[in-house]
Amino acid sequence: MTDRTPVAVAPGLRERIEDFLAHIARAIDDDALEDWPAAFTADATYRIIPREGFEAGEPVGILSCQGRGMMQDRVLALRTANIFEPHSYCHILARPLLAVSADGTIAARSGFALYRTQQGGGTELFAAGKYLDRIVEQDGALRLAARDVVVESRRVDILIVLPI
Amino acid sequence: MTDRTPVAVAPGLRERIEDFLAHIARAIDDDALEDWPAAFTADATYRIIPREGFEAGEPVGILSCQGRGMMQDRVLALRTANIFEPHSYCHILARPLLAVSADGTIAARSGFALYRTQQGGGTELFAAGKYLDRIVEQDGALRLAARDVVVESRRVDILIVLPI
Amino acid sequence: MTDRTPVAVAPGLRERIEDFLAHIARAIDDDALEDWPAAFTADATYRIIPREGFEAGEPVGILSCQGRGMMQDRVLALRTANIFEPHSYCHILARPLLAVSADGTIAARSGFALYRTQQGGGTELFAAGKYLDRIVEQDGALRLAARDVVVESRRVDILIVLPI
Repeated sequence: MTDRTPVAVAPGLRERIEDFLAHIARAIDDDALEDWPAAFTADATYRIIPREGFEAGEPVGILSCQGRGMMQDRVLALRTANIFEPHSYCHILARPLLAVSADGTIAARSGFALYRTQQGGGTELFAAGKYLDRIVEQDGALRLAARDVVVESRRVDILIVLPI
Repeated sequence: MTDRTPVAVAPGLRERIEDFLAHIARAIDDDALEDWPAAFTADATYRIIPREGFEAGEPVGILSCQGRGMMQDRVLALRTANIFEPHSYCHILARPLLAVSADGTIAARSGFALYRTQQGGGTELFAAGKYLDRIVEQDGALRLAARDVVVESRRVDILIVLPI
Repeated sequence: MTDRTPVAVAPGLRERIEDFLAHIARAIDDDALEDWPAAFTADATYRIIPREGFEAGEPVGILSCQGRGMMQDRVLALRTANIFEPHSYCHILARPLLAVSADGTIAARSGFALYRTQQGGGTELFAAGKYLDRIVEQDGALRLAARDVVVESRRVDILIVLPI
Protein backbone atom coordinates (compact mmCIF):
# COMPACT_ATOMS: atom_id res chain seq x y z
CA MET A 1 0.00 0.00 0.00
CA THR A 2 2.97 2.28 0.46
CA ASP A 3 4.89 3.16 -2.65
CA ARG A 4 7.99 1.30 -1.60
CA THR A 5 7.50 -1.40 -4.18
CA PRO A 6 10.30 -1.01 -6.67
CA VAL A 7 8.85 0.31 -9.89
CA ALA A 8 11.35 -0.64 -12.53
CA VAL A 9 9.34 0.91 -15.33
CA ALA A 10 11.14 3.66 -17.18
CA PRO A 11 8.86 6.63 -17.84
CA GLY A 12 9.30 6.27 -21.59
CA LEU A 13 8.27 2.62 -21.44
CA ARG A 14 5.17 3.47 -19.43
CA GLU A 15 4.18 6.01 -22.08
CA ARG A 16 4.54 3.39 -24.80
CA ILE A 17 2.54 0.83 -22.84
CA GLU A 18 -0.28 3.22 -22.06
CA ASP A 19 -0.49 4.31 -25.69
CA PHE A 20 -0.42 0.67 -26.76
CA LEU A 21 -3.30 -0.24 -24.45
CA ALA A 22 -5.29 2.81 -25.51
CA HIS A 23 -4.82 1.92 -29.17
CA ILE A 24 -6.18 -1.58 -28.58
CA ALA A 25 -9.29 -0.15 -26.95
CA ARG A 26 -9.68 2.35 -29.75
CA ALA A 27 -9.48 -0.36 -32.40
CA ILE A 28 -12.54 -1.98 -30.90
CA ASP A 29 -14.38 1.25 -30.18
CA ASP A 30 -13.80 2.74 -33.62
CA ASP A 31 -14.65 -0.43 -35.51
CA ALA A 32 -11.09 -1.07 -36.67
CA LEU A 33 -11.41 -4.69 -35.55
CA GLU A 34 -8.71 -5.92 -37.91
CA ASP A 35 -6.19 -4.07 -35.77
CA TRP A 36 -7.20 -6.01 -32.70
CA PRO A 37 -5.50 -9.38 -33.47
CA ALA A 38 -2.42 -7.50 -34.66
CA ALA A 39 -1.84 -6.38 -31.08
CA PHE A 40 -1.18 -9.97 -30.02
CA THR A 41 1.77 -12.30 -30.52
CA ALA A 42 1.22 -15.23 -32.87
CA ASP A 43 0.68 -17.70 -30.02
CA ALA A 44 -1.03 -15.35 -27.59
CA THR A 45 -4.00 -16.32 -25.47
CA TYR A 46 -7.11 -14.21 -24.97
CA ARG A 47 -9.76 -15.07 -22.42
CA ILE A 48 -12.83 -13.44 -20.93
CA ILE A 49 -13.35 -14.80 -17.44
CA PRO A 50 -15.90 -13.94 -14.75
CA ARG A 51 -14.22 -12.80 -11.56
CA GLU A 52 -15.83 -15.41 -9.36
CA GLY A 53 -14.40 -18.32 -11.29
CA PHE A 54 -11.09 -16.59 -11.77
CA GLU A 55 -10.62 -16.14 -8.03
CA ALA A 56 -11.77 -19.65 -7.29
CA GLY A 57 -9.02 -20.93 -9.55
CA GLU A 58 -11.54 -22.12 -12.14
CA PRO A 59 -10.81 -19.80 -14.99
CA VAL A 60 -13.47 -21.15 -17.27
CA GLY A 61 -13.71 -18.49 -19.88
CA ILE A 62 -16.83 -17.06 -21.42
CA LEU A 63 -14.66 -16.81 -24.47
CA SER A 64 -11.20 -18.13 -25.21
CA CYS A 65 -8.86 -17.68 -28.16
CA GLN A 66 -5.61 -19.63 -28.58
CA GLY A 67 -3.34 -17.83 -30.98
CA ARG A 68 -3.67 -14.78 -33.16
CA GLY A 69 -5.09 -16.84 -36.00
CA MET A 70 -8.14 -17.69 -33.96
CA MET A 71 -8.66 -14.01 -33.23
CA GLN A 72 -8.31 -13.14 -36.91
CA ASP A 73 -10.86 -15.82 -37.78
CA ARG A 74 -13.20 -14.32 -35.30
CA VAL A 75 -12.90 -10.86 -36.77
CA LEU A 76 -13.21 -12.23 -40.29
CA ALA A 77 -16.38 -14.04 -39.32
CA LEU A 78 -17.77 -10.81 -37.97
CA ARG A 79 -16.98 -9.02 -41.20
CA THR A 80 -18.09 -11.65 -43.71
CA ALA A 81 -20.99 -13.33 -42.00
CA ASN A 82 -23.10 -10.28 -42.52
CA ILE A 83 -24.12 -10.36 -38.92
CA PHE A 84 -26.42 -7.61 -37.93
CA GLU A 85 -24.20 -5.54 -35.74
CA PRO A 86 -26.41 -3.32 -33.74
CA HIS A 87 -24.07 -2.00 -31.10
CA SER A 88 -20.85 -0.13 -30.47
CA TYR A 89 -18.47 -0.04 -27.55
CA CYS A 90 -16.76 2.70 -25.62
CA HIS A 91 -13.91 1.76 -23.28
CA ILE A 92 -12.73 3.82 -20.34
CA LEU A 93 -9.39 2.52 -19.13
CA ALA A 94 -7.87 3.42 -15.81
CA ARG A 95 -4.13 3.89 -15.42
CA PRO A 96 -2.41 0.49 -15.53
CA LEU A 97 -0.34 -0.87 -12.67
CA LEU A 98 2.85 -2.26 -14.16
CA ALA A 99 5.47 -4.76 -13.09
CA VAL A 100 8.48 -5.69 -15.14
CA SER A 101 10.02 -9.16 -14.90
CA ALA A 102 13.70 -9.90 -15.14
CA ASP A 103 13.19 -11.15 -18.71
CA GLY A 104 11.55 -7.90 -19.72
CA THR A 105 8.00 -9.20 -19.78
CA ILE A 106 5.57 -6.64 -18.44
CA ALA A 107 2.56 -7.51 -16.31
CA ALA A 108 -0.13 -4.86 -16.57
CA ARG A 109 -3.37 -4.57 -14.64
CA SER A 110 -5.81 -2.02 -15.98
CA GLY A 111 -9.27 -1.41 -14.60
CA PHE A 112 -11.88 -0.72 -17.25
CA ALA A 113 -15.48 0.20 -17.74
CA LEU A 114 -17.11 -0.71 -21.01
CA TYR A 115 -20.20 1.05 -22.33
CA ARG A 116 -22.40 -0.36 -25.01
CA THR A 117 -24.77 1.54 -27.22
CA GLN A 118 -27.46 -0.25 -29.17
CA GLN A 119 -28.30 1.24 -32.51
CA GLY A 120 -31.00 3.77 -31.88
CA GLY A 121 -30.83 3.07 -28.17
CA GLY A 122 -29.20 4.51 -25.11
CA THR A 123 -25.75 3.96 -23.70
CA GLU A 124 -25.36 1.62 -20.78
CA LEU A 125 -22.67 -0.09 -18.78
CA PHE A 126 -21.94 -3.43 -20.42
CA ALA A 127 -19.12 -4.66 -18.21
CA ALA A 128 -16.55 -3.52 -15.69
CA GLY A 129 -13.44 -5.32 -14.61
CA LYS A 130 -9.73 -5.49 -15.27
CA TYR A 131 -7.35 -6.47 -18.01
CA LEU A 132 -4.55 -8.67 -16.77
CA ASP A 133 -2.02 -8.44 -19.56
CA ARG A 134 1.36 -9.96 -20.26
CA ILE A 135 3.17 -7.65 -22.66
CA VAL A 136 6.34 -8.43 -24.58
CA GLU A 137 8.47 -6.63 -27.09
CA GLN A 138 8.86 -8.18 -30.53
CA ASP A 139 10.83 -6.58 -33.35
CA GLY A 140 10.70 -3.26 -31.59
CA ALA A 141 6.95 -3.27 -31.01
CA LEU A 142 4.87 -4.07 -27.97
CA ARG A 143 2.50 -7.01 -28.19
CA LEU A 144 0.13 -8.88 -25.92
CA ALA A 145 1.38 -12.38 -25.14
CA ALA A 146 -1.66 -12.98 -22.97
CA ARG A 147 -4.77 -11.06 -22.02
CA ASP A 148 -7.20 -12.16 -19.36
CA VAL A 149 -10.29 -9.99 -19.25
CA VAL A 150 -11.65 -10.50 -15.76
CA VAL A 151 -15.22 -9.21 -15.70
CA GLU A 152 -16.90 -8.44 -12.40
CA SER A 153 -20.16 -10.13 -13.14
CA ARG A 154 -21.11 -13.54 -14.39
CA ARG A 155 -24.14 -11.94 -15.91
CA VAL A 156 -22.56 -10.80 -19.13
CA ASP A 157 -24.49 -11.25 -22.32
CA ILE A 158 -23.75 -14.71 -23.62
CA LEU A 159 -23.69 -13.30 -27.11
CA ILE A 160 -20.45 -11.37 -26.96
CA VAL A 161 -20.00 -10.44 -30.57
CA LEU A 162 -17.22 -7.93 -30.33
CA PRO A 163 -14.07 -8.64 -28.36
CA ILE A 164 -13.95 -6.90 -25.01
CA MET B 1 -2.04 -1.44 -33.31
CA THR B 2 1.65 -1.88 -32.65
CA ASP B 3 3.39 1.02 -31.02
CA ARG B 4 5.49 1.84 -34.04
CA THR B 5 3.58 4.98 -34.80
CA PRO B 6 5.97 7.85 -34.19
CA VAL B 7 4.81 9.65 -31.08
CA ALA B 8 6.31 13.10 -31.34
CA VAL B 9 4.84 14.26 -28.05
CA ALA B 10 7.42 15.33 -25.52
CA PRO B 11 6.60 13.98 -22.05
CA GLY B 12 6.38 17.48 -20.62
CA LEU B 13 3.89 18.51 -23.29
CA ARG B 14 1.73 15.48 -22.59
CA GLU B 15 1.63 16.44 -18.91
CA ARG B 16 0.49 19.92 -19.81
CA ILE B 17 -2.18 18.64 -22.18
CA GLU B 18 -3.56 16.14 -19.72
CA ASP B 19 -3.72 18.76 -16.99
CA PHE B 20 -5.36 21.17 -19.42
CA LEU B 21 -8.04 18.65 -20.35
CA ALA B 22 -8.63 17.71 -16.74
CA HIS B 23 -9.04 21.37 -15.79
CA ILE B 24 -11.69 21.83 -18.47
CA ALA B 25 -13.66 18.89 -17.11
CA ARG B 26 -13.25 20.18 -13.58
CA ALA B 27 -14.57 23.61 -14.52
CA ILE B 28 -17.83 22.02 -15.58
CA ASP B 29 -17.97 19.53 -12.73
CA ASP B 30 -17.22 22.07 -10.02
CA ASP B 31 -19.59 24.71 -11.37
CA ALA B 32 -16.84 27.08 -12.47
CA LEU B 33 -18.54 27.46 -15.84
CA GLU B 34 -16.96 30.84 -16.54
CA ASP B 35 -13.64 29.03 -16.92
CA TRP B 36 -15.02 26.86 -19.68
CA PRO B 37 -15.05 29.38 -22.58
CA ALA B 38 -11.64 30.61 -21.47
CA ALA B 39 -10.21 27.27 -22.51
CA PHE B 40 -11.04 27.99 -26.16
CA THR B 41 -9.46 30.28 -28.75
CA ALA B 42 -11.51 33.31 -29.78
CA ASP B 43 -12.73 31.67 -32.98
CA ALA B 44 -12.94 28.11 -31.74
CA THR B 45 -15.75 25.74 -32.59
CA TYR B 46 -17.55 23.51 -30.14
CA ARG B 47 -19.98 20.83 -31.22
CA ILE B 48 -21.83 17.94 -29.64
CA ILE B 49 -22.46 15.30 -32.30
CA PRO B 50 -24.04 11.85 -32.10
CA ARG B 51 -21.67 9.18 -33.30
CA GLU B 52 -23.98 7.81 -35.96
CA GLY B 53 -24.20 11.09 -37.85
CA PHE B 54 -20.54 11.83 -37.27
CA GLU B 55 -19.47 8.58 -38.90
CA ALA B 56 -21.94 9.00 -41.74
CA GLY B 57 -20.30 12.30 -42.54
CA GLU B 58 -23.35 14.24 -41.42
CA PRO B 59 -22.05 15.96 -38.36
CA VAL B 60 -25.27 17.68 -37.45
CA GLY B 61 -24.66 18.78 -33.96
CA ILE B 62 -27.03 18.56 -31.02
CA LEU B 63 -25.36 21.76 -30.03
CA SER B 64 -22.91 24.01 -31.85
CA CYS B 65 -21.00 27.10 -30.79
CA GLN B 66 -19.00 29.25 -33.22
CA GLY B 67 -16.48 31.30 -31.32
CA ARG B 68 -15.71 31.87 -27.67
CA GLY B 69 -18.23 34.69 -27.47
CA MET B 70 -21.08 32.32 -28.15
CA MET B 71 -19.85 30.06 -25.38
CA GLN B 72 -19.61 32.97 -22.99
CA ASP B 73 -23.15 34.02 -23.88
CA ARG B 74 -24.29 30.54 -23.14
CA VAL B 75 -22.69 30.52 -19.72
CA LEU B 76 -24.01 34.01 -18.98
CA ALA B 77 -27.50 32.91 -19.89
CA LEU B 78 -27.17 30.00 -17.50
CA ARG B 79 -26.08 32.31 -14.72
CA THR B 80 -28.53 35.19 -15.22
CA ALA B 81 -31.65 33.49 -16.49
CA ASN B 82 -32.31 32.06 -13.09
CA ILE B 83 -32.79 28.67 -14.64
CA PHE B 84 -33.55 25.98 -12.17
CA GLU B 85 -30.39 23.99 -12.29
CA PRO B 86 -31.14 20.66 -10.77
CA HIS B 87 -28.15 18.58 -11.77
CA SER B 88 -24.41 18.31 -11.61
CA TYR B 89 -21.87 16.50 -13.75
CA CYS B 90 -18.94 14.27 -13.03
CA HIS B 91 -16.50 13.52 -15.88
CA ILE B 92 -14.21 10.54 -16.04
CA LEU B 93 -11.63 11.06 -18.77
CA ALA B 94 -9.48 8.31 -20.17
CA ARG B 95 -5.91 8.95 -21.20
CA PRO B 96 -5.84 10.93 -24.46
CA LEU B 97 -4.24 9.67 -27.63
CA LEU B 98 -2.17 12.50 -29.07
CA ALA B 99 -0.78 13.39 -32.47
CA VAL B 100 1.26 16.48 -33.18
CA SER B 101 1.15 18.14 -36.59
CA ALA B 102 4.09 19.81 -38.27
CA ASP B 103 2.63 23.22 -37.37
CA GLY B 104 2.48 22.29 -33.69
CA THR B 105 -1.27 21.73 -33.57
CA ILE B 106 -2.17 18.79 -31.37
CA ALA B 107 -4.96 16.37 -32.15
CA ALA B 108 -6.25 14.68 -29.00
CA ARG B 109 -8.79 11.89 -28.66
CA SER B 110 -10.02 11.27 -25.14
CA GLY B 111 -12.69 8.77 -24.21
CA PHE B 112 -15.04 9.96 -21.50
CA ALA B 113 -17.91 8.88 -19.34
CA LEU B 114 -20.18 11.56 -17.94
CA TYR B 115 -22.32 11.02 -14.87
CA ARG B 116 -25.23 13.21 -13.98
CA THR B 117 -26.78 13.63 -10.58
CA GLN B 118 -30.19 15.17 -10.19
CA GLN B 119 -30.70 17.20 -7.08
CA GLY B 120 -31.96 14.80 -4.47
CA GLY B 121 -31.65 11.94 -6.91
CA GLY B 122 -29.20 9.23 -7.78
CA THR B 123 -26.18 9.31 -10.04
CA GLU B 124 -26.49 7.86 -13.52
CA LEU B 125 -24.59 7.66 -16.75
CA PHE B 126 -25.57 10.64 -18.87
CA ALA B 127 -23.32 10.10 -21.86
CA ALA B 128 -20.21 8.28 -23.01
CA GLY B 129 -18.09 9.05 -26.02
CA LYS B 130 -14.94 10.82 -27.02
CA TYR B 131 -13.58 14.32 -27.24
CA LEU B 132 -11.87 15.02 -30.54
CA ASP B 133 -9.85 18.13 -29.80
CA ARG B 134 -7.58 20.38 -31.78
CA ILE B 135 -5.25 22.08 -29.32
CA VAL B 136 -3.00 25.04 -30.05
CA GLU B 137 -0.61 27.16 -28.02
CA GLN B 138 -1.36 30.87 -27.71
CA ASP B 139 0.73 33.26 -25.67
CA GLY B 140 2.29 30.36 -23.83
CA ALA B 141 -0.99 28.71 -22.91
CA LEU B 142 -2.84 25.75 -24.38
CA ARG B 143 -6.25 26.39 -25.87
CA LEU B 144 -8.90 24.44 -27.73
CA ALA B 145 -9.20 25.56 -31.34
CA ALA B 146 -11.92 22.96 -31.90
CA ARG B 147 -13.75 20.42 -29.80
CA ASP B 148 -16.07 17.82 -31.22
CA VAL B 149 -17.87 15.89 -28.52
CA VAL B 150 -18.89 12.66 -30.21
CA VAL B 151 -21.51 10.98 -28.03
CA GLU B 152 -22.26 7.31 -28.49
CA SER B 153 -26.00 7.60 -28.43
CA ARG B 154 -28.50 9.74 -30.24
CA ARG B 155 -30.68 9.46 -27.22
CA VAL B 156 -29.16 12.26 -25.21
CA ASP B 157 -31.47 14.59 -23.38
CA ILE B 158 -32.50 17.33 -25.75
CA LEU B 159 -32.23 19.77 -22.92
CA ILE B 160 -28.48 19.90 -22.52
CA VAL B 161 -28.12 22.78 -20.13
CA LEU B 162 -24.50 22.45 -19.14
CA PRO B 163 -21.78 22.01 -21.71
CA ILE B 164 -20.51 18.48 -21.99
CA MET C 1 -8.52 27.20 -17.45
CA THR C 2 -5.33 27.92 -19.30
CA ASP C 3 -2.35 25.86 -18.27
CA ARG C 4 -0.46 28.78 -16.82
CA THR C 5 -0.89 27.59 -13.28
CA PRO C 6 2.55 26.64 -12.05
CA VAL C 7 2.70 22.88 -11.79
CA ALA C 8 5.46 22.20 -9.35
CA VAL C 9 5.07 18.44 -9.54
CA ALA C 10 8.13 16.63 -10.76
CA PRO C 11 7.24 13.91 -13.28
CA GLY C 12 8.72 11.23 -11.06
CA LEU C 13 6.62 12.36 -8.13
CA ARG C 14 3.46 12.30 -10.22
CA GLU C 15 4.24 8.71 -11.22
CA ARG C 16 4.63 7.73 -7.58
CA ILE C 17 1.40 9.47 -6.59
CA GLU C 18 -0.62 7.91 -9.38
CA ASP C 19 0.71 4.47 -8.54
CA PHE C 20 -0.02 5.08 -4.87
CA LEU C 21 -3.62 6.07 -5.58
CA ALA C 22 -4.11 3.13 -7.93
CA HIS C 23 -2.78 0.73 -5.29
CA ILE C 24 -5.28 2.02 -2.75
CA ALA C 25 -8.14 1.42 -5.16
CA ARG C 26 -6.79 -2.02 -5.97
CA ALA C 27 -6.59 -2.99 -2.32
CA ILE C 28 -10.33 -2.45 -2.02
CA ASP C 29 -11.20 -3.96 -5.39
CA ASP C 30 -9.08 -7.07 -4.90
CA ASP C 31 -10.22 -7.70 -1.34
CA ALA C 32 -6.87 -6.85 0.21
CA LEU C 33 -8.65 -4.63 2.73
CA GLU C 34 -5.86 -4.88 5.28
CA ASP C 35 -3.71 -2.80 2.95
CA TRP C 36 -6.21 0.03 2.99
CA PRO C 37 -5.51 1.49 6.47
CA ALA C 38 -1.79 1.12 5.82
CA ALA C 39 -2.09 3.79 3.16
CA PHE C 40 -2.95 6.38 5.81
CA THR C 41 -0.89 8.19 8.42
CA ALA C 42 -1.53 7.23 12.04
CA ASP C 43 -3.71 10.28 12.70
CA ALA C 44 -5.30 10.56 9.26
CA THR C 45 -8.92 11.36 8.69
CA TYR C 46 -11.20 9.59 6.25
CA ARG C 47 -14.66 10.84 5.41
CA ILE C 48 -17.37 10.05 2.90
CA ILE C 49 -19.40 13.21 2.28
CA PRO C 50 -22.28 13.93 -0.10
CA ARG C 51 -21.45 16.77 -2.44
CA GLU C 52 -24.42 18.90 -1.48
CA GLY C 53 -23.43 19.13 2.16
CA PHE C 54 -19.77 19.47 1.30
CA GLU C 55 -20.41 22.52 -0.87
CA ALA C 56 -22.79 24.04 1.67
CA GLY C 57 -19.99 23.89 4.21
CA GLU C 58 -21.77 21.21 6.19
CA PRO C 59 -19.48 18.29 5.67
CA VAL C 60 -21.51 15.81 7.65
CA GLY C 61 -20.06 12.53 6.62
CA ILE C 62 -21.94 9.39 5.76
CA LEU C 63 -18.92 7.76 7.32
CA SER C 64 -16.00 9.19 9.25
CA CYS C 65 -12.82 7.65 10.61
CA GLN C 66 -10.40 9.50 12.89
CA GLY C 67 -7.02 7.82 12.80
CA ARG C 68 -5.67 4.69 11.20
CA GLY C 69 -6.65 2.60 14.21
CA MET C 70 -10.30 3.28 13.56
CA MET C 71 -9.86 2.16 9.98
CA GLN C 72 -8.09 -1.00 11.07
CA ASP C 73 -10.91 -1.74 13.51
CA ARG C 74 -13.35 -1.33 10.68
CA VAL C 75 -11.51 -3.79 8.47
CA LEU C 76 -11.08 -6.23 11.34
CA ALA C 77 -14.79 -6.09 12.04
CA LEU C 78 -15.47 -6.89 8.41
CA ARG C 79 -13.15 -9.87 8.57
CA THR C 80 -14.16 -11.35 11.93
CA ALA C 81 -17.84 -10.53 12.18
CA ASN C 82 -18.61 -13.08 9.55
CA ILE C 83 -20.72 -10.56 7.74
CA PHE C 84 -22.24 -11.86 4.60
CA GLU C 85 -20.31 -9.95 2.02
CA PRO C 86 -22.21 -10.18 -1.19
CA HIS C 87 -20.56 -7.56 -3.35
CA SER C 88 -17.31 -6.44 -4.85
CA TYR C 89 -16.09 -3.08 -6.08
CA CYS C 90 -14.34 -1.89 -9.18
CA HIS C 91 -12.85 1.62 -9.18
CA ILE C 92 -12.10 3.67 -12.25
CA LEU C 93 -9.91 6.62 -11.32
CA ALA C 94 -9.36 9.60 -13.55
CA ARG C 95 -5.99 11.33 -13.69
CA PRO C 96 -5.47 13.37 -10.51
CA LEU C 97 -4.97 17.12 -10.50
CA LEU C 98 -2.08 17.85 -8.16
CA ALA C 99 -0.87 20.87 -6.22
CA VAL C 100 2.20 20.87 -4.04
CA SER C 101 2.40 23.13 -0.98
CA ALA C 102 5.56 24.80 0.22
CA ASP C 103 5.84 22.23 3.01
CA GLY C 104 5.73 19.38 0.51
CA THR C 105 2.16 18.33 1.21
CA ILE C 106 0.35 17.33 -1.95
CA ALA C 107 -3.28 18.09 -2.61
CA ALA C 108 -4.79 15.66 -5.11
CA ARG C 109 -8.20 15.71 -6.71
CA SER C 110 -9.16 12.52 -8.54
CA GLY C 111 -12.50 11.89 -10.15
CA PHE C 112 -13.75 8.36 -9.76
CA ALA C 113 -16.53 6.02 -10.76
CA LEU C 114 -17.22 3.04 -8.55
CA TYR C 115 -19.00 -0.06 -9.81
CA ARG C 116 -20.55 -2.62 -7.53
CA THR C 117 -21.34 -6.19 -8.36
CA GLN C 118 -23.67 -8.21 -6.21
CA GLN C 119 -22.87 -11.88 -5.94
CA GLY C 120 -24.69 -13.55 -8.78
CA GLY C 121 -25.96 -10.19 -9.98
CA GLY C 122 -25.04 -7.59 -12.50
CA THR C 123 -22.59 -4.73 -12.30
CA GLU C 124 -23.92 -1.25 -11.67
CA LEU C 125 -22.71 2.20 -10.86
CA PHE C 126 -22.55 2.53 -7.09
CA ALA C 127 -21.14 6.02 -6.78
CA ALA C 128 -19.30 8.71 -8.69
CA GLY C 129 -17.43 11.67 -7.29
CA LYS C 130 -13.96 12.79 -6.38
CA TYR C 131 -11.26 12.01 -3.88
CA LEU C 132 -9.84 15.11 -2.26
CA ASP C 133 -6.61 13.86 -0.76
CA ARG C 134 -3.85 15.36 1.30
CA ILE C 135 -0.74 13.28 0.70
CA VAL C 136 2.46 13.42 2.72
CA GLU C 137 5.76 11.59 2.65
CA GLN C 138 6.73 9.60 5.74
CA ASP C 139 9.89 7.53 5.97
CA GLY C 140 10.26 7.59 2.24
CA ALA C 141 6.73 6.43 1.51
CA LEU C 142 3.62 8.30 0.45
CA ARG C 143 0.67 8.28 2.81
CA LEU C 144 -2.77 9.82 3.00
CA ALA C 145 -3.01 12.40 5.79
CA ALA C 146 -6.62 13.09 4.86
CA ARG C 147 -9.09 11.71 2.37
CA ASP C 148 -12.46 13.27 1.71
CA VAL C 149 -14.57 11.14 -0.59
CA VAL C 150 -17.10 13.57 -2.04
CA VAL C 151 -19.89 11.57 -3.62
CA GLU C 152 -22.21 13.19 -6.12
CA SER C 153 -25.41 11.86 -4.70
CA ARG C 154 -26.93 11.79 -1.26
CA ARG C 155 -28.63 8.61 -2.26
CA VAL C 156 -25.83 6.23 -1.47
CA ASP C 157 -26.65 3.00 0.24
CA ILE C 158 -26.69 3.64 3.96
CA LEU C 159 -25.04 0.31 4.46
CA ILE C 160 -21.60 1.07 3.15
CA VAL C 161 -19.74 -2.04 4.16
CA LEU C 162 -16.53 -1.63 2.26
CA PRO C 163 -14.59 1.61 2.26
CA ILE C 164 -15.01 3.68 -0.86
